[in-house]
Amino acid sequence: MQKKVITVSREFGSGGRSIAKLVAEKLGYDYYDSELVERVAKETGFSQEYIADAGEYAPGKSILSYAFSSGTPHAGPAMSANDYLWATQCRIITELAEKGNCVIVGRCADYILRNRDDCLNVFVHADKDYKAKRIVELYGVTDKSPEKRLNEKDGKRKVNYKYFTGREWGKPENYHLCINSSYFGNECCAEIIASLATK
Amino acid sequence: MQKKVITVSREFGSGGRSIAKLVAEKLGYDYYDSELVERVAKETGFSQEYIADAGEYAPGKSILSYAFSSGTPHAGPAMSANDYLWATQCRIITELAEKGNCVIVGRCADYILRNRDDCLNVFVHADKDYKAKRIVELYGVTDKSPEKRLNEKDGKRKVNYKYFTGREWGKPENYHLCINSSYFGNECCAEIIASLATK
Repeated sequence: MQKKVITVSREFGSGGRSIAKLVAEKLGYDYYDSELVERVAKETGFSQEYIADAGEYAPGKSILSYAFSSGTPHAGPAMSANDYLWATQCRIITELAEKGNCVIVGRCADYILRNRDDCLNVFVHADKDYKAKRIVELYGVTDKSPEKRLNEKDGKRKVNYKYFTGREWGKPENYHLCINSSYFGNECCAEIIASLATK
Repeated sequence: MQKKVITVSREFGSGGRSIAKLVAEKLGYDYYDSELVERVAKETGFSQEYIADAGEYAPGKSILSYAFSSGTPHAGPAMSANDYLWATQCRIITELAEKGNCVIVGRCADYILRNRDDCLNVFVHADKDYKAKRIVELYGVTDKSPEKRLNEKDGKRKVNYKYFTGREWGKPENYHLCINSSYFGNECCAEIIASLATK
């Protein structure tokens, strides 16, 4: 059965986003990454920066340091900012899946769409040295070691995923396919994923 | 680069062995599962039953309940039965890999061959319901629930793998590919693995 939705979860520095983009190009599917953040921002009134980070930080941490981009969210008084954001994100991702033919990066989409049978969930990972080299090339040097940056970023994704889904981020049981991008290369990974989506 | 060796680790009930066999057939490779146990038995003097189970049980547990099939092992006095078995297993797996063109099931082969760059390491997993149904069909009903049997068997594999390799069994970082057999089916899984081995 043709898979209408492909979700791509990825380790920081693995190139999962580039692979997801390649898959979307190969299949002629829509690609949602920052576009998704923009939509959620528009609907909630939260700043894009907050939404982008809220996908990676442990809820309840640091959220007071973010400002709303405009007005206040439309949540009822009993709903926390994080819960409201999550509810909106779930609705938007469900709508996108309903429309179909799309690749969605991150944001717990694999969990949100867990009851669909036309959804292919992929996890992209890579060897540590490869990721460390890649993040320095892409994002430059900082005062932290690349290893520390990798651990911090993925550590936060793990906590966030656990909080909202109750699952362990990056465990094979949550995905149909886990693939090592440093071993196969981006193009080969994209080929495999695209071919599996049409099986 | 053509992969000369494919290692297949698998959850109990996932059909990983059948998939490994299919891959070997597709590629015309040798297939080592019980054959490997036989070779280790022959070289060590341990019984095949002991060797088969020692790949799945936590070392130090229950080993006294096993008898040697013939004579005594050729290990020096400072080496425990488990260490001796492990050393022999490492040597035999390394020799098989050197010969090349083979599929090896289980027995920490992914770890033993970690320094080769012509080795494709695969982990086969499946949904719980699928595995539960499959083990009852294949091995019959016992007084334990299928879920308990699955947890016990894989739990032991986990402990054994950790003891000998220091790694976490079933974590994506140890494999190049993790694939859900209940989602894709055995034939499709074998196709993907065989095609990746020739890339």
